[in-house]
Amino acid sequence: MFQSNITVTLRKSILDPQGKAVEHAIHSLGYTLVEDVRIGKHIQLSINSPSKEEAERITDDVCKKLLANMVMEDYTFTVEKVR
Amino acid sequence: MFQSNITVTLRKSILDPQGKAVEHAIHSLGYTLVEDVRIGKHIQLSINSPSKEEAERITDDVCKKLLANMVMEDYTFTVEKVR
Repeated sequence: MFQSNITVTLRKSILDPQGKAVEHAIHSLGYTLVEDVRIGKHIQLSINSPSKEEAERITDDVCKKLLANMVMEDYTFTVEKVR
Repeated sequence: MFQSNITVTLRKSILDPQGKAVEHAIHSLGYTLVEDVRIGKHIQLSINSPSKEEAERITDDVCKKLLANMVMEDYTFTVEKVR
């Protein structure tokens, strides 16, 4: 069993209004040293594949086809063996 | 300048209907080896603090007070120096 941890983030050039809203909320709590906030998605997959390579291939396919919008988002992931 | 990468996830005992929906979508793409999907949030903060300790303290405070609902969510974060 392998576990993939995927992070999907908006590309740098894309405005992130949700991040801006959270930034304002953080500032109103008094944490003015926080200068920029970007919000993304975190997805964890449990994959019952025979090898790590297969788990990585499945994760990459699923990101491209379903989890990330390649026009405006980037993704990174790590795969590790569990159990 | 420091960068915090925060992951907020639902606690194990909390049902994740969004994850279940994505799991069904992944299965209908033919990837039946994927057995469980959990969805969380990823938040990236840029913090203009003098020290890493200060950046970690700010990140932890902001998670507890704003970003994570401590009743049903867990959070982890890493802080690294940038620039």
